[in-house]
Amino acid sequence: MTLHIHKYGGTSVGTAEKIQNVAKKLVNEKNKTGNELVVVVSAMSGETNRMTDLAKQMQGAPSSKQMDVLLSTGEQVTIALLCMAIEELGHKAVSYTGSQVKIITDDSHSKARIEDIHTDKLKADLDAGNIVVVAGFQGVTESGAITTLGRGGSDTTAVALAAALKADECRIYTDVDGVYTTDPRVEPNARRLDKITFEEMLEMASLGSKILQIRSVEFAGKYNVPLRVLSTFKEGNGTLITYEDEEMEKALISGIAFNRDEAKVTLAGVPDMPGVASAILKPISEANIEIDMIVQNIAEDKTTDFTFTIHRDDYDNTVKILENSCEELGAEKVIGDNKIVKVSIVGVGMRSHAGIASQMFTALADEGINIQMISTSEIKISVVVDEKYLELAVRTLHESFGLSEE
Amino acid sequence: MTLHIHKYGGTSVGTAEKIQNVAKKLVNEKNKTGNELVVVVSAMSGETNRMTDLAKQMQGAPSSKQMDVLLSTGEQVTIALLCMAIEELGHKAVSYTGSQVKIITDDSHSKARIEDIHTDKLKADLDAGNIVVVAGFQGVTESGAITTLGRGGSDTTAVALAAALKADECRIYTDVDGVYTTDPRVEPNARRLDKITFEEMLEMASLGSKILQIRSVEFAGKYNVPLRVLSTFKEGNGTLITYEDEEMEKALISGIAFNRDEAKVTLAGVPDMPGVASAILKPISEANIEIDMIVQNIAEDKTTDFTFTIHRDDYDNTVKILENSCEELGAEKVIGDNKIVKVSIVGVGMRSHAGIASQMFTALADEGINIQMISTSEIKISVVVDEKYLELAVRTLHESFGLSEE
Repeated sequence: MTLHIHKYGGTSVGTAEKIQNVAKKLVNEKNKTGNELVVVVSAMSGETNRMTDLAKQMQGAPSSKQMDVLLSTGEQVTIALLCMAIEELGHKAVSYTGSQVKIITDDSHSKARIEDIHTDKLKADLDAGNIVVVAGFQGVTESGAITTLGRGGSDTTAVALAAALKADECRIYTDVDGVYTTDPRVEPNARRLDKITFEEMLEMASLGSKILQIRSVEFAGKYNVPLRVLSTFKEGNGTLITYEDEEMEKALISGIAFNRDEAKVTLAGVPDMPGVASAILKPISEANIEIDMIVQNIAEDKTTDFTFTIHRDDYDNTVKILENSCEELGAEKVIGDNKIVKVSIVGVGMRSHAGIASQMFTALADEGINIQMISTSEIKISVVVDEKYLELAVRTLHESFGLSEE
Repeated sequence: MTLHIHKYGGTSVGTAEKIQNVAKKLVNEKNKTGNELVVVVSAMSGETNRMTDLAKQMQGAPSSKQMDVLLSTGEQVTIALLCMAIEELGHKAVSYTGSQVKIITDDSHSKARIEDIHTDKLKADLDAGNIVVVAGFQGVTESGAITTLGRGGSDTTAVALAAALKADECRIYTDVDGVYTTDPRVEPNARRLDKITFEEMLEMASLGSKILQIRSVEFAGKYNVPLRVLSTFKEGNGTLITYEDEEMEKALISGIAFNRDEAKVTLAGVPDMPGVASAILKPISEANIEIDMIVQNIAEDKTTDFTFTIHRDDYDNTVKILENSCEELGAEKVIGDNKIVKVSIVGVGMRSHAGIASQMFTALADEGINIQMISTSEIKISVVVDEKYLELAVRTLHESFGLSEE
């Protein structure tokens, strides 16, 4: 029996009518293919904001533990409504909250990580011919506290369920019809990719493509879950995210990713000795702030500058933490800039080709765009530039690497 | 250590500001008395209707199992917000859904009955100095399905918790400031009672006083939980519901109760033989329809008429079921009327006094009110009359039994 996991985000289930539309898609799919279906849904769009507003009226900085109790009601509403809509179409359905499945997470509230998923009940319900509807974004600790998985958590739920249930495909339904060479709102010539490798998608996602959350792609890659991104509202096959194989298009690079929400911070004049990087990053990580690029240049005069980028929302908090570290480590000062963006070229093809970096830097230089930081991995090169250059940089690179051509 | 259970209904937590007001009351009480506090809350007023509307858009007759999943989110929102508001005032609080407490119920969805309550975690949280906030109205089956307790379920939760935790008092905060001799909207001379016995309250509640749900009063009586009804918005001591004792006011009757939402059905020409009553009522009870008054007259011509009253919402369904029974039992026909009301006089004093019934019937007759059914218990006499006589009957009896005088 073929098992598919479907995931529908907040805009796909944003109204009663849209939920009925999803129910129709599911029942049609079930009747047409006979596939077993597990459906992961988010809160109806707008609900999370409504609840966050209520919470802010209660408490200046709402406790993340209670925020999880509050926000997890959003998906619970959706699972109940979707089951009703499926039943109305004459098909059997069962609903599960994260607690009911036992999607066991750690106790890192608002950013919990999945540790285990109990699948016995789900399997029994699938065997009995039900469409199984699961609340995304949420889990429960071993001791019974409700947790949420943070940004994009419903994608993570879907992929984790696909892995745990050994699903044949995990389909992420969203408001875009696939993965593009870059954001079409920035570069109108952007083109949908039929396939992309996990590694590329991982880089694209982590660099801000916003279609899939990075953790869900990591999960999918780790557990060999074939992942497909496609539109809730338009017909089409979307983009399949696969392992690198012989058939892959042999493009040098597959896409241009960018991230508007970056900020950079530098701890300048840090004594150059072992353990410094760890001493700087430990309090950051303990505050649950995710670090993106890290750059440290060679030491001059026995001191060095340590720079990293973070989400713009975490900027103030990070600067505060670094000011403590500055004193403790006897560093010189903290410098920061929250008006920067990151632009990256991504492609498995660049592994076997020299000169890609040079082509990238030349293209940007020709347009007078100053590069502030550079970071590279096997399949991507990222640069940090002033935010005013974002659109120009993306279009320049899209053109330079011939991505518009079919 | 003194332990109080507080219960706040939907209107008491209907807005962000009202939730903050409840938080203030609780923290003040905690600081002033040092009492241990467990707080049971309902969904914010309006939420249940909003969700019911959504459900009806999904499914003609929404499945009660999914309705429970849906509606239980209402109280979950309130517990999170109230904990935030308490924390903002500098006090520790922990929240519990019904599932998290393990308020174990049977699987009678939308009308579940509490079978067991696990108290270990709650006790540990109280010992640690927390205000413990529990979602009312909801429970969970042994197998993990979410259930709700039906109308007035949050009162039941509060009293059941009071019993399980052996609380010193269970305080039901509501929008009225106590129990009155009758509804002041019908009889402006109605007077607040300082005390009322459990038995009287039970009769008052079951007859439609609407302040407390009957099951919560039963529970409180059964487990000797002192219950107090008081206002969320006004200062005052409310009405204490106690066991009958020497101090009780020796009034003949304590109040006039009435119920607008009644309907009566009669199965006429039923063969008069053993087992008939049970054969008639079994399918009604299996459909989870609650029966109120039952009247069966002596048999004439070997057949009898069997009449009972039910909630008006259950009228159509009951008639349908009776029509089946009619055929099976060889009865003559089904007659019904859903435009009736029940008016009752209640008082422990009537036990030792003759002539109360006669005084009641005379007072009604003097006003030309026709009595359709009569039913009596040790401490109440109920009559069914045409709904157009409701107000007149209540005022006549309030006056006749001298309830207006202090």
